[in-house]
Amino acid sequence: MTSQAVKQRAAKAAVSTPTDREIRVERIFDAPRERLWRAFTDPALLAQWWGRGNRLVVERYELEKGGHWRFVEHADDGVHGFEGRFREVTPPERLAMTFEWDGMPGYVAIETTVLEDLGDGRTRLVATTLFHTTEERDGMLGAMGEGLDQSYAALDRLLAGGA
Amino acid sequence: MTSQAVKQRAAKAAVSTPTDREIRVERIFDAPRERLWRAFTDPALLAQWWGRGNRLVVERYELEKGGHWRFVEHADDGVHGFEGRFREVTPPERLAMTFEWDGMPGYVAIETTVLEDLGDGRTRLVATTLFHTTEERDGMLGAMGEGLDQSYAALDRLLAGGA
Repeated sequence: MTSQAVKQRAAKAAVSTPTDREIRVERIFDAPRERLWRAFTDPALLAQWWGRGNRLVVERYELEKGGHWRFVEHADDGVHGFEGRFREVTPPERLAMTFEWDGMPGYVAIETTVLEDLGDGRTRLVATTLFHTTEERDGMLGAMGEGLDQSYAALDRLLAGGA
Repeated sequence: MTSQAVKQRAAKAAVSTPTDREIRVERIFDAPRERLWRAFTDPALLAQWWGRGNRLVVERYELEKGGHWRFVEHADDGVHGFEGRFREVTPPERLAMTFEWDGMPGYVAIETTVLEDLGDGRTRLVATTLFHTTEERDGMLGAMGEGLDQSYAALDRLLAGGA
């Protein structure tokens, strides 16, 4: 495999289903962990990548255990609200929160993001999302489409810019 | 069994665990379904029974799919906040919402309440609560104590008063 091929592969998130109610996403970013942590927890930076490149309005962002968050994405197909509450905030390595889309209110997943310092200036992200039912998990898998990779590509650009 | 014994038994909610992530509560109330529905969905009435007889402040109550609710109970052992969002509102028989206690933010259960008209002026309530994990379910079972029966006894008094 050429180094170019490795790079191509690294740029696509690895999505798996470790249990019947979970989605696991793994991806390596070419930036130190502290920088990743900021991109995941600073609302001004989140607004630049979380919404797949679409305009994102951060209506609420209380980064502490029990704090609430709410994002509104302005996409071509309409306006989408997302919200939740922080369960764990442990800089710079672990962030857990609830996640709910306005389109399916009352259907709540738990998203746990772990950032691992690879020691060479790169960081491994592992994001695990737990759903109440397999049906909800499968619905999310179907809805994810290219969105995840689009968001991470926007994050790559932000990190390359030296955020 | 005497009719008095039946009455005594009816006054205690039947709590069971149909699956490893659920709690099921069943109880019969001596009131028509429409009256139960109002007691479960009118904030002024909820405030009179939901908090086990303690003072309950309804900070938010948006009774519609996607609407939010938030209660604050003023108990002897302190102030407890509870909140969630409505998933389904189908009068007068079915109400589903998320449930989260401030003491464990980010741990969300789904509570589905079904009211069945027994045709003789009484109503059967079946409330099923689904948790993300068995540990969360067991934590709730341990915390429930007498609180559930105290709240339902307060509801009995409210219904007897002709609410």
